[in-house]
Amino acid sequence: MELGLIGTGKMGYNLALNLKEKGHCVVAYDINRANTKGLADRGITVVREINEVAGRLSGRKTILLMVPVGPPIDDAIAGITPLLAAGDVIIDGGNSNYKDSIRRYESLRRQGIYFLDCGTSGGVSGALQGVCLMVGGDAEAVHYCEPVFKDISVPDGYLYTGKAGSGHFCKMIHNGIEYGMMQAIAEGFELLNKSGFDFNLQQVAGVWNHGSVVRSWLMELLENALAKDASLSTIKGIMKSTGEGKWTVETALDNSICTPVIALSLLMRYRSLEDDTFSGKVVAALRNQFGGHQVVTQA
Amino acid sequence: MELGLIGTGKMGYNLALNLKEKGHCVVAYDINRANTKGLADRGITVVREINEVAGRLSGRKTILLMVPVGPPIDDAIAGITPLLAAGDVIIDGGNSNYKDSIRRYESLRRQGIYFLDCGTSGGVSGALQGVCLMVGGDAEAVHYCEPVFKDISVPDGYLYTGKAGSGHFCKMIHNGIEYGMMQAIAEGFELLNKSGFDFNLQQVAGVWNHGSVVRSWLMELLENALAKDASLSTIKGIMKSTGEGKWTVETALDNSICTPVIALSLLMRYRSLEDDTFSGKVVAALRNQFGGHQVVTQA
Repeated sequence: MELGLIGTGKMGYNLALNLKEKGHCVVAYDINRANTKGLADRGITVVREINEVAGRLSGRKTILLMVPVGPPIDDAIAGITPLLAAGDVIIDGGNSNYKDSIRRYESLRRQGIYFLDCGTSGGVSGALQGVCLMVGGDAEAVHYCEPVFKDISVPDGYLYTGKAGSGHFCKMIHNGIEYGMMQAIAEGFELLNKSGFDFNLQQVAGVWNHGSVVRSWLMELLENALAKDASLSTIKGIMKSTGEGKWTVETALDNSICTPVIALSLLMRYRSLEDDTFSGKVVAALRNQFGGHQVVTQA
Repeated sequence: MELGLIGTGKMGYNLALNLKEKGHCVVAYDINRANTKGLADRGITVVREINEVAGRLSGRKTILLMVPVGPPIDDAIAGITPLLAAGDVIIDGGNSNYKDSIRRYESLRRQGIYFLDCGTSGGVSGALQGVCLMVGGDAEAVHYCEPVFKDISVPDGYLYTGKAGSGHFCKMIHNGIEYGMMQAIAEGFELLNKSGFDFNLQQVAGVWNHGSVVRSWLMELLENALAKDASLSTIKGIMKSTGEGKWTVETALDNSICTPVIALSLLMRYRSLEDDTFSGKVVAALRNQFGGHQVVTQA
């Protein structure tokens, strides 16, 4: 089918190629024109202004947003809705907060425009070869867009999760679980690395991917990373995050649900952002005050 | 090759069948004779006394122990060593503490008997169809037993991890990671289950196994469990543990290594064993003392 695509960053770019490969007709736009480089040569229509996207589509229009979360989503919606009509569909394929998605759904619904919140997992390679999709929103619009969802996902990798917000909620929880799984794997390899045994960490990750209980895509990715750099010595242990882990913990707090491992995984990411902490200074100062324990002073 | 097998519980039984299937000649013994039921009919030699095992083997003897950890391992070793000679090999395929394995290695080494610590992952189904093995001990003995290790593991699912103790250490860390991954998955599904959205949890686990970042064998097992019981209503949330998670945390403490997620996964298991806690009573009592907050009283 015909599809407008707003945002051709790492994910959007590969999704454009994936969609084209599956026979869809893609009209692409990115606020940063450099991001669309090479797409036109591969049969994708690239336009220079966001308001040109809808004009290049015929009939009932579908627009897929693959733009950074927050205001860029609202900006993109504002840029395209003037040329959309009742029945047209906007899909947010990014990692938006599900509460924002419900707000956008309700706002667009008043104009007769459908809004689908589509959680997309699988990383940059998945965007090209097949992703995992969790889609929330009105069933009629989901059904209309299903050929696209099925084509860009791996077999059985697409689920209609229910009412508006459920797709991004589901993706948020997916990412919360991902935080915890990654931290657990990371702690295990920290222990192996400091064990006193002479483990080849790449081989350990490798054997665990064959028949063990912890076999997983994350363990395969770690095996790849260790194959390139056996001790990860070229990487600093700074663990950034976007929003999903934080929102997962906020959801747990709002609903009084006990999620210690996901919460601590998030807090350990925050800890990794600082070389030193004020809390560390406080504990060191207190030990010094009551017990005369030596403090380490700044150079 | 010929192989003595001590212990035909859930894992040992299936390994016996797996070994037989691969053409090995198995002499099996279990302290509980009922556990060997059916093995003789499937071509496995079953003996009634532990000291008969070695007598049925010829040449350089290999004995695989699949018995519960702790004293049963030492009992089994005591039961078989009188009939073993220098060069013979004992393999502990269970989840022994790596420190015990080093002790046993050193003790048997003085008698010229090799001791290999073999971490075995893959569960009961893996025991039958192919496991993941991490084997520590002297290279010569590992090499001698390699046909067995390769035959009972999945392709690329066998690793020689190095000196004595390293196999069980590696398996201990594997299980520590497993605790953290399971708790992370569990917390995510707790949030989905209490979300207010109408998620079909089996379908969510299912779609996540196709193309998502968290795809994993554990997620497949959860999909299976939810297929049988959509809300797990027949199961109580009591999370037992054997020893590996505790030993992983002890190792972290002994080496001053920060492993909060694995540690909390273990503590959440302990919490799940109690309907009520004394610590909960303490906090409730204190809130009542300073703020007059109501306590919930025993019926």
